Amino acid sequence: MAIQKIEHLGIAVSDLSLAEEIFSKLLGLKAYKEEKVEREGVKTVFFQIGDTKIELLGGLNEESPVSKFILKKGEGMHHIALDVNDLEEEMKRLQKEGFIFIYDQPKEGADNKLINFIHPKSTGGILVELCEEKK
Amino acid sequence: MAIQKIEHLGIAVSDLSLAEEIFSKLLGLKAYKEEKVEREGVKTVFFQIGDTKIELLGGLNEESPVSKFILKKGEGMHHIALDVNDLEEEMKRLQKEGFIFIYDQPKEGADNKLINFIHPKSTGGILVELCEEKK
Repeated sequence: MAIQKIEHLGIAVSDLSLAEEIFSKLLGLKAYKEEKVEREGVKTVFFQIGDTKIELLGGLNEESPVSKFILKKGEGMHHIALDVNDLEEEMKRLQKEGFIFIYDQPKEGADNKLINFIHPKSTGGILVELCEEKK
Repeated sequence: MAIQKIEHLGIAVSDLSLAEEIFSKLLGLKAYKEEKVEREGVKTVFFQIGDTKIELLGGLNEESPVSKFILKKGEGMHHIALDVNDLEEEMKRLQKEGFIFIYDQPKEGADNKLINFIHPKSTGGILVELCEEKK
């Protein structure tokens, strides 16, 4: 199977510290990583749960795509990230099926990954990230 | 750990057949189950991916909570379901932490499960389902 698993779920939150506290209580475990991604204007907090992760996303400033998302749609689920073995091959397969990608080429993401996003227009409103662990 | 894994992700869609076709292409696999839950006014389609599932939810009529959700927020992610060993015990733990449940007692859900929902007010806007596989 081309898609291996759900790598993580991204959740947009307006108060990252508060959300971290809530999810820590909810899941009964502590976040294992925090990471600031300046070029995306975002700070992230990760929880491991089974073979997938929950990624809380807080905007670093008002220009951040996450802050704009929250202004428009409110806090809540932001994207689903799917783990693939070969991102370029998977992009080719999906482009043939009519899916539109946000970037022409895979891009460096956080967490040692190559990433790209499928435009929500081609997935019925869901922002889908594809990510490949760099070898 | 009390929470075992993400059991499934629920996605609200306005055209279930179309969404099934899109997700089938996206994931490169076929849905393994369809299930109508009359008392919830919903038809569901399930995809297995790694150790979790994607559940597409389509409203059977305008009164269905899923149809109302789509009217209010648009298509998109609807809930995260977490797998627990003992739902009553987990409810007690979470109520002590201040989480509000939608039902006083676990309820029969689809797919041979006992379920309950945590009110989105207590999770920063995310509807969280807890589910326990019936023994």
